[in-house]
Amino acid sequence: MTIARDEIGQRSETVRRANLSAIVRELHGQGPLTRSELVARTGLTRSAIRGLIGELAVGGLVTESPAASLGMPGRPSPLVCPDPEGAVVLALDIEVDSLAAAVVGLGGEVLDHIRVDRPRGHSSVEQIADDLGQLVGVLRARRSGWSEIAIGVAVVGVVRRADGLVSMAPNLGWTDVPLGARLERVLGSEAPIHVANEADLGALAEVRRGAARGAEHVLFVSGEVGVGGGLIVEGQPFTGVAGYGGEIGHMPINPAGLSCRCGSVGCWETEVGAVSLLRRAGRPPHSGRAEIDGFLRDAEAGSPTALRALAETGRWLGIGLAGLVNVLDPRLVVFGGLFGRIHPFVAETVDAELDRRALAAPRRLVRVVAGSLGAEAPLRGAAELAFEPLLADPAMWMRRRDVESSRDAVLPLRRVVA
Amino acid sequence: MTIARDEIGQRSETVRRANLSAIVRELHGQGPLTRSELVARTGLTRSAIRGLIGELAVGGLVTESPAASLGMPGRPSPLVCPDPEGAVVLALDIEVDSLAAAVVGLGGEVLDHIRVDRPRGHSSVEQIADDLGQLVGVLRARRSGWSEIAIGVAVVGVVRRADGLVSMAPNLGWTDVPLGARLERVLGSEAPIHVANEADLGALAEVRRGAARGAEHVLFVSGEVGVGGGLIVEGQPFTGVAGYGGEIGHMPINPAGLSCRCGSVGCWETEVGAVSLLRRAGRPPHSGRAEIDGFLRDAEAGSPTALRALAETGRWLGIGLAGLVNVLDPRLVVFGGLFGRIHPFVAETVDAELDRRALAAPRRLVRVVAGSLGAEAPLRGAAELAFEPLLADPAMWMRRRDVESSRDAVLPLRRVVA
Repeated sequence: MTIARDEIGQRSETVRRANLSAIVRELHGQGPLTRSELVARTGLTRSAIRGLIGELAVGGLVTESPAASLGMPGRPSPLVCPDPEGAVVLALDIEVDSLAAAVVGLGGEVLDHIRVDRPRGHSSVEQIADDLGQLVGVLRARRSGWSEIAIGVAVVGVVRRADGLVSMAPNLGWTDVPLGARLERVLGSEAPIHVANEADLGALAEVRRGAARGAEHVLFVSGEVGVGGGLIVEGQPFTGVAGYGGEIGHMPINPAGLSCRCGSVGCWETEVGAVSLLRRAGRPPHSGRAEIDGFLRDAEAGSPTALRALAETGRWLGIGLAGLVNVLDPRLVVFGGLFGRIHPFVAETVDAELDRRALAAPRRLVRVVAGSLGAEAPLRGAAELAFEPLLADPAMWMRRRDVESSRDAVLPLRRVVA
Repeated sequence: MTIARDEIGQRSETVRRANLSAIVRELHGQGPLTRSELVARTGLTRSAIRGLIGELAVGGLVTESPAASLGMPGRPSPLVCPDPEGAVVLALDIEVDSLAAAVVGLGGEVLDHIRVDRPRGHSSVEQIADDLGQLVGVLRARRSGWSEIAIGVAVVGVVRRADGLVSMAPNLGWTDVPLGARLERVLGSEAPIHVANEADLGALAEVRRGAARGAEHVLFVSGEVGVGGGLIVEGQPFTGVAGYGGEIGHMPINPAGLSCRCGSVGCWETEVGAVSLLRRAGRPPHSGRAEIDGFLRDAEAGSPTALRALAETGRWLGIGLAGLVNVLDPRLVVFGGLFGRIHPFVAETVDAELDRRALAAPRRLVRVVAGSLGAEAPLRGAAELAFEPLLADPAMWMRRRDVESSRDAVLPLRRVVA
C-alpha cells in the first residue's frame, strides 16, 4: 500500500517506511522500472522517488543504470533494478515424488536450483530434513559468498504457519511433525524459516510470476497424488485463520465413492487425483512420475483408453470445480501440477461441467487456465513467502543488517549476512 | 482500526477521523461504555477520548450520562451511550415466505419492526418493491420525525453489491433484476440503498449481535428452502470479488442425486433444504412455514418418522459441512434459519460426520452452534450493512448532515435528515 504524503499531511517515519516498501515491492514483482514508471505506479512524487531510491541503493537492494532513452520526448528516466544479490532467500520444496532447493534473489531470479527424485512413501522428518540439508550443502559449495535472509519451505501437507508444524501429510505419513524446528537445527541458519502448504505457495507464485500475474482473485488447483488448493483474495493469500484452509481435495463429492487416505469417503481427490487417473487408464495406479509421463505420451498419441480416462477425470474435475466456483467466486482458476499438464485434454469437459453446474453469475466471470510455472510453482512460491518480511518493511531489514554487519566486524567468526 | 496519535507522530485530520470511527464503532457494537472502557478498548488517551466524545455529542450521535460509580476506587467514569435516535437506518428483508421492514437506531436497537407472510412462488420485482413500500409507509405512519440515513436490503438471491442487481434468485423467479434501482424509485428516499445476500447479512448479524459475537472467522450456514452461506474472515464479510461467493447450497455433493432448481444435479441444497426434510418426513414438501412448524412439533413429541428424517438431513448436513471445514477452516459454524431450529436434533449427527470426514487439524478447531437471532438475522444484518458508511467515517457523515440541515433551513419542503 502506498501512503501518499499529503494524505497524512506530514512526513513521518511510518510513511517513509511504507513508501520504501511500495517501491521494493514493485521492483521485486515487475523487475527493472524507470523512475518515471515508479512515479506512475506508486503515486509518489519524482523527488520522493529519487530520495527513496538513493536510500535503497545505499542499502544494497537496488542499482541504477544510466538513463535509458525510450524514444519518448523529454529527459530519459534512469532505470532502477532490484539487485538479485542484494538479498537472497533459500527456497525448499517437499513433494511426494521429489525434493528441491533453490537460491532466489530479490526480483525473483532463480540463482541456483536442484531437484532430486525421492521414493514415494513414508519418510521420517529427520530423513527429509537431512536430505534437504545435503541439497543446501551442494548449493553452498557451488556458489560462495551468499547467505539467505530467510528460508521458505513448501510441503505437501497441512501446515500451522506460526511455527511450521505439519499437522497432517498423509503422503509422507506425518501427523503433528515439527518440520520448521527440525530444519532450523539441520540447516544451522539464523535466518527465519517460514513453512506453508505447497498449493498455497503455488498459488502465490502463479499470481506473482505466472499465469495469474496481476489477477486479484485466483483459485489455484493443484493435482498430483493429492489435490491441493490455494486461494488468492485481493492479491493476498487466504488460508483460514491458522493456515489449514484450502484443502479442496477433501471435499466430499461422491458419498458412494472410494475410501480416501484422509479417512473419509468419496473426497474429490479420490476421483481426480493421479491414482484414479492411472487406474482409469488401466495402469498401475500407485507408481511414480515415469508412469504419468508414459500415460501422457499415450494420450498425445491419441490412445482411446488414455483419452477416455482423461474425459472421466475431466468430468469430475468440472463437478468439484463448479462447487468451488459457487462457494468462492474466483475470477481465474489456475490448474497446477498434473492438472496443468492434462489441461489441454480436459479443458472442454471442465468448461462444459461448469456451464451445467455452476451458477450463471459466477460462471460468467471465471476462466480456467493452465499454470505457467509447472512443477516449480511451489518452490517459487516458497521464495516469495521468504521475501515477504523484507518487502513489507525494507527499512527495518536494512537497519537490522547494518547492526549485524557492525557486530560481525567485532566478531569475525559470525557469518556475514548478505 | 485505531490509529494511536504517537504512531504517526503528528495529529492530523486522518487520525482524528479514524479515532472518531473507532469510538462510534465500539459504541454501536457494544452499547453504552464508560470513558474508561473506551480508553481501554481504543488505546486512545483519556483527554483524546474526552475531546472526541464532545464532538460526537454535538453531532448528535452520543449522549453522556452522569458518572456511574462502579464500586471501584477512583473517580467514577461518565457513561457514553450511542443515541439510537441520532442516526437510524431502514432495514428490509425479502425471504421466500415473508417480507420484513424495520427501523434500527445507532447501537442496533430495533425501534420498530413489521414482518408479513408472502405466498411462496414467483413475484415480480415491482410487486415486491410495492409491498415493501407499503410496509415502510406503515412504519412512517406509526412513528414520525425520523428519516433514515441509509437503507439496507437482504434478499434470497445472488447480488451484485455495486448496484443491487439480483443476478439470480430462483425462489423468486428472478434473473438479472435491478432490485436496488426499483426500491430507490418506490421508496422515494434520498438515502443510499445497499443490497446484499440474506445469508451474508445473517452472518454479519450473528457476528455483531448474535451467537458468533466477537468471533473472527465464522461460517454462517442458513437453511430454509434454499441454503445460503455467509463467511466472516477476521471479523469482516468475505463475499468474493463481486459478491457472488458463499453459494454453499450449490456444492455438488451427490452426483447421483436429485435435480436442483439451479439447473445442476445433486447440490447440497437438494439433500439438506426444507423440501427434502419435509419429503423425508412424508409431508407435502413444497408447503410453507406452518408445515415446518408442525413437523418440528412432531419431532419434539418424539415422532419416529420426524426423528428419522432429521437424522438423514443431519447426516447430509455433516457431509457437506466437512467439505466446507476443509476448504474454509472456520472456528465457528453458526446454523441459521431452519438449521438453527433443527440444531438440537442434528447436532450429534453433524459432529459425528465431521469427526469422520473433516481433516483432523481444522476439525479440532471448529465448533457448530445454533444462531441466536433466528429468522431476524438477515434483517438485523441489513441494518448493519446500512450503518457501515457512518461507522467508517462519522466525521464525514456529521459534516454532510450539517450542510443538508442548513440547506433545509432555506428550502423547508425538503425532508429534514435525522
